[in-house]
Amino acid sequence: MLKQPLITDDTYEMLTFKTLTEREKIMTDTVNWKNIHDHVVEWVLEAGESLKRAVKGHLNVESKSSPDDLVTNMDKQTEQFFINKVRTSYPGHQIVSEEGFGDEVKSTKGILWFIDPIDGTMNFVHQKRHFAISVGIYEEGVGKVAVIYDVISGDIYHCIAGHGAYINDEKLDELDSGELKTSVVAINGTWLSKNRRIDPEIVRGIAEHTRGTRSYGSAAIELAYVAYGILDGYLSMRLAPWDFGAGLILIDEVGGKATQVDGQPLQLLEQNSILIGKKGVHAEMLRYVQEGIQGGKYVQQK
Amino acid sequence: MLKQPLITDDTYEMLTFKTLTEREKIMTDTVNWKNIHDHVVEWVLEAGESLKRAVKGHLNVESKSSPDDLVTNMDKQTEQFFINKVRTSYPGHQIVSEEGFGDEVKSTKGILWFIDPIDGTMNFVHQKRHFAISVGIYEEGVGKVAVIYDVISGDIYHCIAGHGAYINDEKLDELDSGELKTSVVAINGTWLSKNRRIDPEIVRGIAEHTRGTRSYGSAAIELAYVAYGILDGYLSMRLAPWDFGAGLILIDEVGGKATQVDGQPLQLLEQNSILIGKKGVHAEMLRYVQEGIQGGKYVQQK
Repeated sequence: MLKQPLITDDTYEMLTFKTLTEREKIMTDTVNWKNIHDHVVEWVLEAGESLKRAVKGHLNVESKSSPDDLVTNMDKQTEQFFINKVRTSYPGHQIVSEEGFGDEVKSTKGILWFIDPIDGTMNFVHQKRHFAISVGIYEEGVGKVAVIYDVISGDIYHCIAGHGAYINDEKLDELDSGELKTSVVAINGTWLSKNRRIDPEIVRGIAEHTRGTRSYGSAAIELAYVAYGILDGYLSMRLAPWDFGAGLILIDEVGGKATQVDGQPLQLLEQNSILIGKKGVHAEMLRYVQEGIQGGKYVQQK
Repeated sequence: MLKQPLITDDTYEMLTFKTLTEREKIMTDTVNWKNIHDHVVEWVLEAGESLKRAVKGHLNVESKSSPDDLVTNMDKQTEQFFINKVRTSYPGHQIVSEEGFGDEVKSTKGILWFIDPIDGTMNFVHQKRHFAISVGIYEEGVGKVAVIYDVISGDIYHCIAGHGAYINDEKLDELDSGELKTSVVAINGTWLSKNRRIDPEIVRGIAEHTRGTRSYGSAAIELAYVAYGILDGYLSMRLAPWDFGAGLILIDEVGGKATQVDGQPLQLLEQNSILIGKKGVHAEMLRYVQEGIQGGKYVQQK
């Protein structure tokens, strides 16, 4: 039998509101980012175990906006897992996530989580590897915590902003400036072929001046590789905030440069084109894009 | 002090020749491919340990034919390791290998080893991962044993022809026919951009009709992925026999199709263009190339 409540519903509601407001204030003033970071690492490892089991079994695959835009039961289930975790542990925080179970976020105020439960779903389906869980957390639009977990390789790229970035237990070096002619840059074949967003001649001009291009099919992994220094740059004409939210924090932490493809600052709540790299490599790639625009070549501006 | 030899140099030489000839005869008649396969697996694991140690230390990198054609002390050292092993255990066999310590082989007679000590040297240098040791062994031009070791991931793709192909201990499935529109195909950006070997419009036509393209920078790994069914096809305009020797045997074993890019049979002792895939995917890709040639587009023929 339920005990008589000590407080009525009305007073409870008043107290709850008061408590939440105070809690939110504390979180904003003195957020324990270490605690959040450690939670995220714990959660991606737990979710990763489910994904490893899933790739050994049957996947329920659907198409989203186009036949090539795949989603699985595991994308949805993993996103729900994270949302439940965040709602329980950090109720004042907002969530921007791929499968739409998060919040409708209109501003970068407060604490925002950018969650991609499976970045590289096509790889997840076709290859059962080369996919990642990507979690980036921002406060007032400033990157604070990033975790990218390449589930099958087992590598976790992670950082608390201002305290260095890591692959597993190994601290990542500050990136050198680099130069395009000795660089390896991730560019998907889409942008080298006919497409609606950029004149492929511009992208080919960049590709031809690198040492080589690569394409792995997971933006989160490709951005983590840039932060790790095993790729020197990355170009894509279309990434959502949950794709680049975590990677951007990592790249910032190691001294890389990230903008839209025409050099404009990235917009955290929108789809963006993205140009990322070691500072020197970014500058050279940007020069090719800007010369293309000046020469009348098509580059999608917002 | 040296003992008096029991036989003189002259009789020794005669005996040795006689013994070798007999041994060669036995090997050609009743070669123990299981034994050879197990040796190769043992050797790639041993060489892999050296490569893992090397990527943690200093690499001595040189350029070969062009600034982008890298070679390291480890390419040479690993090739020498294999050549010593083969010369000792299988003295009648011939070796075709990347760094040139092998034999000058003019025909496919007898038993030929195609050895790439580090396939993906640029990855080895830049990424310290995504490189492989590739060993393919042929008898009278027919593939017999293949081993591709993706050193850092730890995956070994291997087979004895006619006895199934494996990744580690897991038997690979026979490939289904596949279709281009749901396929993921490995194509490097080089062939989508201006190049001397193929009109990039042909390759872009293929790429646009896939579900997506990838590029990993190691042909041996890409061919192993096709055999494993996690890529559906692969196109390159220039591979050496040591690049594709092992992969070809694996793909044959699982029922995939491999030709030159215009449909001609592959030549084991020459550089080739390569078109490889599930049978249906190969046929569709080939049709784009043939239509291109008929339409007057440039494709390098030998």
